[in-house]
Amino acid sequence: MVNRLFTIIVLIGLPLSVAGSLFHWSQILMFVIYCLTIIALAGFMGRATESLAIVAGPRIGGLLNATFGNAVELIISIFSLKAGLLGVVLASLTGSVIGNLLLVAGLSFFIGGLKYKRQEFNVYDARHNSGMLIFAVVVAFVIPEVFSMTMDEAETLSLSIGISIILIILYLAALFFKLVTHRGVYQHKSDTAEAHEVPEWSKMKAIIILLLSTIAVAYVSENLVHTFETVGEQFGWTELFIGVIIVAIVGNAAEHASAIIMAYKNKMNVAVEIAIGSTLQVSMFVAPLLVLISLFFKDRMPLVFTLPELIAMVTAVFLTIMITNDGDTNWFEGAMLLAAYLIMGIGFYLL
Amino acid sequence: MVNRLFTIIVLIGLPLSVAGSLFHWSQILMFVIYCLTIIALAGFMGRATESLAIVAGPRIGGLLNATFGNAVELIISIFSLKAGLLGVVLASLTGSVIGNLLLVAGLSFFIGGLKYKRQEFNVYDARHNSGMLIFAVVVAFVIPEVFSMTMDEAETLSLSIGISIILIILYLAALFFKLVTHRGVYQHKSDTAEAHEVPEWSKMKAIIILLLSTIAVAYVSENLVHTFETVGEQFGWTELFIGVIIVAIVGNAAEHASAIIMAYKNKMNVAVEIAIGSTLQVSMFVAPLLVLISLFFKDRMPLVFTLPELIAMVTAVFLTIMITNDGDTNWFEGAMLLAAYLIMGIGFYLL
Amino acid sequence: MVNRLFTIIVLIGLPLSVAGSLFHWSQILMFVIYCLTIIALAGFMGRATESLAIVAGPRIGGLLNATFGNAVELIISIFSLKAGLLGVVLASLTGSVIGNLLLVAGLSFFIGGLKYKRQEFNVYDARHNSGMLIFAVVVAFVIPEVFSMTMDEAETLSLSIGISIILIILYLAALFFKLVTHRGVYQHKSDTAEAHEVPEWSKMKAIIILLLSTIAVAYVSENLVHTFETVGEQFGWTELFIGVIIVAIVGNAAEHASAIIMAYKNKMNVAVEIAIGSTLQVSMFVAPLLVLISLFFKDRMPLVFTLPELIAMVTAVFLTIMITNDGDTNWFEGAMLLAAYLIMGIGFYLL
Repeated sequence: MVNRLFTIIVLIGLPLSVAGSLFHWSQILMFVIYCLTIIALAGFMGRATESLAIVAGPRIGGLLNATFGNAVELIISIFSLKAGLLGVVLASLTGSVIGNLLLVAGLSFFIGGLKYKRQEFNVYDARHNSGMLIFAVVVAFVIPEVFSMTMDEAETLSLSIGISIILIILYLAALFFKLVTHRGVYQHKSDTAEAHEVPEWSKMKAIIILLLSTIAVAYVSENLVHTFETVGEQFGWTELFIGVIIVAIVGNAAEHASAIIMAYKNKMNVAVEIAIGSTLQVSMFVAPLLVLISLFFKDRMPLVFTLPELIAMVTAVFLTIMITNDGDTNWFEGAMLLAAYLIMGIGFYLL
Repeated sequence: MVNRLFTIIVLIGLPLSVAGSLFHWSQILMFVIYCLTIIALAGFMGRATESLAIVAGPRIGGLLNATFGNAVELIISIFSLKAGLLGVVLASLTGSVIGNLLLVAGLSFFIGGLKYKRQEFNVYDARHNSGMLIFAVVVAFVIPEVFSMTMDEAETLSLSIGISIILIILYLAALFFKLVTHRGVYQHKSDTAEAHEVPEWSKMKAIIILLLSTIAVAYVSENLVHTFETVGEQFGWTELFIGVIIVAIVGNAAEHASAIIMAYKNKMNVAVEIAIGSTLQVSMFVAPLLVLISLFFKDRMPLVFTLPELIAMVTAVFLTIMITNDGDTNWFEGAMLLAAYLIMGIGFYLL
Repeated sequence: MVNRLFTIIVLIGLPLSVAGSLFHWSQILMFVIYCLTIIALAGFMGRATESLAIVAGPRIGGLLNATFGNAVELIISIFSLKAGLLGVVLASLTGSVIGNLLLVAGLSFFIGGLKYKRQEFNVYDARHNSGMLIFAVVVAFVIPEVFSMTMDEAETLSLSIGISIILIILYLAALFFKLVTHRGVYQHKSDTAEAHEVPEWSKMKAIIILLLSTIAVAYVSENLVHTFETVGEQFGWTELFIGVIIVAIVGNAAEHASAIIMAYKNKMNVAVEIAIGSTLQVSMFVAPLLVLISLFFKDRMPLVFTLPELIAMVTAVFLTIMITNDGDTNWFEGAMLLAAYLIMGIGFYLL
């Protein structure tokens, strides 16, 4: 049903996107159309990636998921970089991190918890992920923030580049660890490995859909980025709020939906993996990649967030770790994550 | 025996309080009399609440304890707000948090640990509480601190009000979770539920005593607040030191006593619940309530602590979580908490 | 083999050290000679302490190890204090903390993890140590940093002295806890207590070697300290980088070697104990002792690190705790610690 809805949105939204940008329709209207179209396209990309992952087997599949999982966000960010909107890029990275940790996980735990009194998941994975969250957010994001206070611009950029390379290498090492050297080592009982999964689409069809929807996302994203200024003025939203809340929700809508569905089916391992795995992908792969990509544009982006962004991410990490580290969730823990998201949302709105 | 002592103090202290404030006795003397009288009155309030809680059954009883547990502190703070002493209010909230986490828990663990090699308590409760501590102190207190740096006064107040409402709703949700939806779910073996407890006082007597002692506390508190300035000058104590150390100890003396007694009886679940539960009550209920109450006075109080206060609370939370998260304490862990309290005490004294 | 190498280095390095300082050889050359000689001498001190510890039994032995374990670093630091290089002293303390937590533990986990899929160690000890790490670094180091921002120099020094005394008392209490009141209480199965260990050297020989190598280390350290300025200028290294990276590696080289060897033999309890135990020794004993010793010199040292140093230590503590708290390591966790060290190393180099 969701799939049919997405098909309709894409079939209507894409032509409207083209028409609107040609005939200069109201920017507010176009902002809404672009956002909806991207969300629907992201749904197609997700299904195509999943089909390919099943065909390709767990190792290559894991790699595919890890690479294309945040493709939409990466594309929007590249166009934002190109437009010189560094603030929006950093804000949307922040938004992805707190959105996945607090909103996606929070909704999953809350809605799942309304149905089940206690939901359990693999505590080994949760602790492994906790370590990486601390590494990525608390070490790799905090260090440049503090050190850059007494550094000039060139030194800050050098540090950012160094950290970015280290983050990407460690992200690849984490994939190698998970898919090769320690595959199954920490898995006691798993609800992820559905035996004999059947791909939705054939390999060829999946590749074509993935390719076409990626191109379409790129086209719409470039247009979307240019509506930010007008929309911000109209609604009294700051660049920060647009990036942290709006772009992050649009860019991660597909993940939100699937995580909640999984939680509702009591497949908590998958729900947690989507929320935290996606956070790790953003912080250890997308963010450093954008720093490196920005070197090819005229405005280079250091890995230095604003202090509110950084503190929001760090506190979100500590809250998530504390809640997930016992391998057990309930509706109240979900409510707590959602409340934290709301607090930060109000903060970024007022800032 | 303690009860008899408290009766004597109240019977002597109350008339002296009235006389002293009428005849303008030395402020230093009155400060001591007020403090002792409040501590003794708090003992009566605690016994009355406990009697009522037993009569009312666990659900309403839990609610009563949660509401009246920090009534003394709430009353002193409201009079401080009225007198425009916002700094003292925030400082005494800080003092309650670090006092409960470090001094109350520290003394309990230390003294209990001198008698027992290892004391255990329900690790599920401890982790549940840890999540809430992180939410209240590390998210809800840190966010306004950092965001307010680049906000004007009106925005800071809006953020404070928003966070306060969220905190109170979540506090009520936590009670609902504990007393209704998940009652007993995480309790493996419990030393809290003494079967067939007999209330000390009848329902009627308890209500009357609760009412009278609350009025008396209110009267004495109002007078106490006005001695702070003179006492501070006399002893070279800052407003901060009076709030963080003195007011916090007076306001929480009753809890200190019962937590230590429980630890000595090896009822660690109760001791931990008093120390951490009281902290959560202060941070998720009393503090936000005071922010909202302050809107009716001329000086409105934002939820923004001084940096030393905030850092003291945050580091106290991390230390407590690390020590309680294994569900096991000993004398050394108590000593560590006490040492942390001493360090902060010296800091606030010198500040 | 390593022992023979160390003997050769000492036999060549010591005369060269004397000759070089008499005949004013190139400072860069002397810096290298001094460093190598100290590393080799530290090896002798370690072996002598170990022999004495075996002879003296576990209690006195534990005390000996705890006292002499960081003797080299203490000696270098005292001479740095005497030379007025307070910045180098604080930096080398920082370097010891992050070096032990990230480099020593990281190398141990990584190299051990290449051989074994999963390495386990006593999770009780790990959690006990985690509590102390939070106490020492997150409470005792962070509080003076934040409070000193609004304190004058005399107040900052008073606070530093108070905290130092508390730290040392708590360190002694921790030894008393571990060696007397709770000896073996938390030990389920131990790979530390090799039954019937035979000391390498006789008691007399060990004492003489310990004494002689301590004197030699002192002599070489005093000379080493005076090469820092020239070396820094020559290589473009800041005082901070020399302290955090160079001095810390030289001062802890012996521990590095033994921790890695233990990890390779799958004796993870010992490897973790060396890395974290040494960190605790530095932060709870060496650092406060240096603050107190500095009172006898003309430049008194407050317990106030630079912000980058403090943040490096705090984030290193959180990362280590998150990784060790499950009592289980693998190569990826080692890689993560090493990556964090590298990030900080780049930061201090660029600063």
